[in-house]
Amino acid sequence: MATSRLEDIFMMTLKDIYHGEKQIAKALPKMAKHAQSPHLKEALSHHLEETKGQVARLERVFQLLDKPPRGETCEAIKGLIEEGEEVMEKADNGAVCDAGMIGVGQAIEHYEIARYGTLMAWARQLGMTEATSLFEETLKEEKKADATLNDIALHEVNRKAA
Amino acid sequence: MATSRLEDIFMMTLKDIYHGEKQIAKALPKMAKHAQSPHLKEALSHHLEETKGQVARLERVFQLLDKPPRGETCEAIKGLIEEGEEVMEKADNGAVCDAGMIGVGQAIEHYEIARYGTLMAWARQLGMTEATSLFEETLKEEKKADATLNDIALHEVNRKAA
Repeated sequence: MATSRLEDIFMMTLKDIYHGEKQIAKALPKMAKHAQSPHLKEALSHHLEETKGQVARLERVFQLLDKPPRGETCEAIKGLIEEGEEVMEKADNGAVCDAGMIGVGQAIEHYEIARYGTLMAWARQLGMTEATSLFEETLKEEKKADATLNDIALHEVNRKAA
Repeated sequence: MATSRLEDIFMMTLKDIYHGEKQIAKALPKMAKHAQSPHLKEALSHHLEETKGQVARLERVFQLLDKPPRGETCEAIKGLIEEGEEVMEKADNGAVCDAGMIGVGQAIEHYEIARYGTLMAWARQLGMTEATSLFEETLKEEKKADATLNDIALHEVNRKAA
């Protein structure tokens, strides 16, 4: 695709995160099932519901741009989900598996925080008021999800895993 | 590799970020050369120097663990660097290319912020005092690098790109 205009790289990033969110929505149920800590299980299940809403917001942005919602493989999220699979497959200690899943989960959250931050700034620059608000809402959820995972690691899981 | 202990996933993540940092050190000179904004060029060149120091800190952590420094392919950073290559190749507008490179750069920084945050927490839990300090130092640099890129986007590049 051509990338001469800010609108073009905006669309490229939108497709990337759309694909990423859909991959995350598929991966989260398995991670929640594997979690030993009830707090982690609850956090992952809660984030699955949020993720579904985030996918819907992205679809609204495609609609505002009069484009069909279409993803393009997000290699970063794909790699991180594979790492999560590896942790779940190999870690035979429940708390260590939880710690590893939280590590992967926080890397995913931070990737999304960066991407939604960029999309929000570009949408604002392009005068896309509704899209700016949608990204802002999602951004808040991602930051909160990261903070929740951090709390669970620091106050429970890491101690059990050590 | 076995991942029964927190030490095992610590090593797995250490190898991942070591490989990632080395890939970043290779990619930054090309990105700096491509940057149109002098501020962005300077920020990327400065971060290249920091990255070299961060690689050295990681090598010190391997040494503290009495292990040879060895990386394992970090798919997330690999994917992001490929995206940066794509932006540089396709964007024929300098400011749009700068905006795209900043987007990729902030995604890389956030990935690293997540990973160093996790490594620092695990090192602290494992009583690795020197490693904890080394990760903390790098974490500060990554956060500052992200903030610098953000400033350049918001106060200069995005406006020129729109």
